[in-house]
Amino acid sequence: MNQPRLAVKQDMSRVLELIQELATFEKETDAVEVNVLDLERDGFGENPKFTCFVLEVNNSIEGIALVYPRYSTWKGEVLHLEDLIVSEKCRGKGLGTLLLNSVVKHAKQLGVKRVSWEVIDWNDPAIKFYESKGANVMRDWDVVQLDEKGIENYLKAI
Amino acid sequence: MNQPRLAVKQDMSRVLELIQELATFEKETDAVEVNVLDLERDGFGENPKFTCFVLEVNNSIEGIALVYPRYSTWKGEVLHLEDLIVSEKCRGKGLGTLLLNSVVKHAKQLGVKRVSWEVIDWNDPAIKFYESKGANVMRDWDVVQLDEKGIENYLKAI
Repeated sequence: MNQPRLAVKQDMSRVLELIQELATFEKETDAVEVNVLDLERDGFGENPKFTCFVLEVNNSIEGIALVYPRYSTWKGEVLHLEDLIVSEKCRGKGLGTLLLNSVVKHAKQLGVKRVSWEVIDWNDPAIKFYESKGANVMRDWDVVQLDEKGIENYLKAI
Repeated sequence: MNQPRLAVKQDMSRVLELIQELATFEKETDAVEVNVLDLERDGFGENPKFTCFVLEVNNSIEGIALVYPRYSTWKGEVLHLEDLIVSEKCRGKGLGTLLLNSVVKHAKQLGVKRVSWEVIDWNDPAIKFYESKGANVMRDWDVVQLDEKGIENYLKAI
């Protein structure tokens, strides 16, 4: 098995395919609004907004881990894992572990005190995988979102 | 009532007090490891890691909202509200609404498609407040964390 490597701009087309595959799996097929140009600009400009690791199997990217810094008012700068994706056909072969290894090593290099991410509560294989790695799945903490329409409605009401 | 304003470096000592007050409310009294110097450096250096709004009552800061950008692989750059805190003695006077107004206006100015945050599921007044503002409290999405010790253990095991 290859080891993960840092993504380059030319990988973003395949990275977007995997992002879309995960959105479909999460029953949010139409939620992906970013395009390849967005990912290229946002990840590889002067101030990159994320760092992406990719993992190839037979010269095809079959897994990605996309991270960026966040700021905890308790711990200072921390690392957030936005997406850990393995293509459906390559599940169960250990790609997720290799990618998470890269993420945790990256966190160590940055010197941060936490890696955080989010999981949907019916994704049992993912939850078991994360807990087997020592992560704390905090079932009492929920994610809250005000979406684009919510922002518009909010501003109209004040 | 005053309107919220952007924090300055000199506010960080009081901001830290409010951060500590919230940690105690969330039964995590010992979790706060940042100090005033960290907040001053991280919020007011060359590349600030967060933006903080503060709201004064009788010349004392009684509420804060601390935000920073995140990157959604579905929506591009989004805004994350790390902390919305109102001191216990000033709850129920509308400070939270004024602070959230500033956050949503800031999101609009940045042109982002989402504001996100996290809430602990037993904090009913907070959840009701957020839902009354049109936010979606996603009870099926859980927060996952690998803490400092978890990072060390993880790296020892690979």
